[in-house]
Amino acid sequence: MAYNITSLSELIKQFEKLPGIGKKTAQRLAFHILAQPPQNAQQFAKALVEAREKIHFCPCCQSLTDDALCSVCSDEARDNSTICVVEDPKDVLAFEKTREYKGLYHVLHGAFSPLDGIGPEQLKIKELMKRLSDTTVKEVIMATNLTVEGEATASYISRLAKPLGVKVTRLAYGIPVGGDLEYADEKTLTRALEGRNEI
Amino acid sequence: MAYNITSLSELIKQFEKLPGIGKKTAQRLAFHILAQPPQNAQQFAKALVEAREKIHFCPCCQSLTDDALCSVCSDEARDNSTICVVEDPKDVLAFEKTREYKGLYHVLHGAFSPLDGIGPEQLKIKELMKRLSDTTVKEVIMATNLTVEGEATASYISRLAKPLGVKVTRLAYGIPVGGDLEYADEKTLTRALEGRNEI
Repeated sequence: MAYNITSLSELIKQFEKLPGIGKKTAQRLAFHILAQPPQNAQQFAKALVEAREKIHFCPCCQSLTDDALCSVCSDEARDNSTICVVEDPKDVLAFEKTREYKGLYHVLHGAFSPLDGIGPEQLKIKELMKRLSDTTVKEVIMATNLTVEGEATASYISRLAKPLGVKVTRLAYGIPVGGDLEYADEKTLTRALEGRNEI
Repeated sequence: MAYNITSLSELIKQFEKLPGIGKKTAQRLAFHILAQPPQNAQQFAKALVEAREKIHFCPCCQSLTDDALCSVCSDEARDNSTICVVEDPKDVLAFEKTREYKGLYHVLHGAFSPLDGIGPEQLKIKELMKRLSDTTVKEVIMATNLTVEGEATASYISRLAKPLGVKVTRLAYGIPVGGDLEYADEKTLTRALEGRNEI
């Protein structure tokens, strides 16, 4: 194409890398950035670099934080006898939105997927077991997604946790089967929490 | 919300500012950035700042460029007797993709919109008239959008340009190539009828 601006093409390419952003949308977003004052682009750039540099896994629950411990783990008002095990940091956000759950979390960072080479070693299961060996933990709520991978992960962890004398529960059906926790609304999540059953 | 990471919220807020990106999508994009290596975020940030800093309006056609003149204006092989007038730099990109048009462009950066306070002064009309006073220009193709605003802008400019002895044309409007007659709206069909040509 005769009309070629290197720095514009580079910006479009960067937007295209984002999930769900196609060529046309990437172009639209890049032109939007150019139409804004320069400080907006700088703020955006700063937010990108800062978020990526500051945010790391919480050493306790493996969720995301920019502090020594995440805000849930460091909150002494939370009930430390219950741990809700989720696949993804986004799921923690979804639970926090219900304002119903007062316990702690543990993020596995995925679920079993033999085809992708993801087994117990690739997930944060060892870290969870270490937490469960602490006698204060009385219940583990398995809140992995209701998919084949999530179910397999839940039953694997429940087999490991039960010998430790920990009660293992699963979220109640109420979340649509095959649905992603991330997209469940607050009401559905609350119902799922209330109706949890022992595995 | 108890679960609050300042730098993450800031990144989500920045993504939300983009057109067509809602809360959920912004969250998904921010988490995607966190899941990538830090150098990806840095590259993205660099592309944002560089594009915004380097790219400016071409002093001749008012399109975007990161050079002294844009690649179209500085190309001596282009036909400088024809100027295609468009509303937006994106429209230049669309024309260049056809590989058919060999003339020059002029970007107005908008169209008349009295409610938003956009009149002749806010658009790059003065700059266009300066170019038209040059005797090499023989034809102006009005390629503003087929909206009330675009039509008003086109007729205003044609009234100014005609006394200068410049031929003013308007893009043909009709059924899009590959389009189904069944789905064409009344306005488009009317324009297609009006603009019919002998086979």
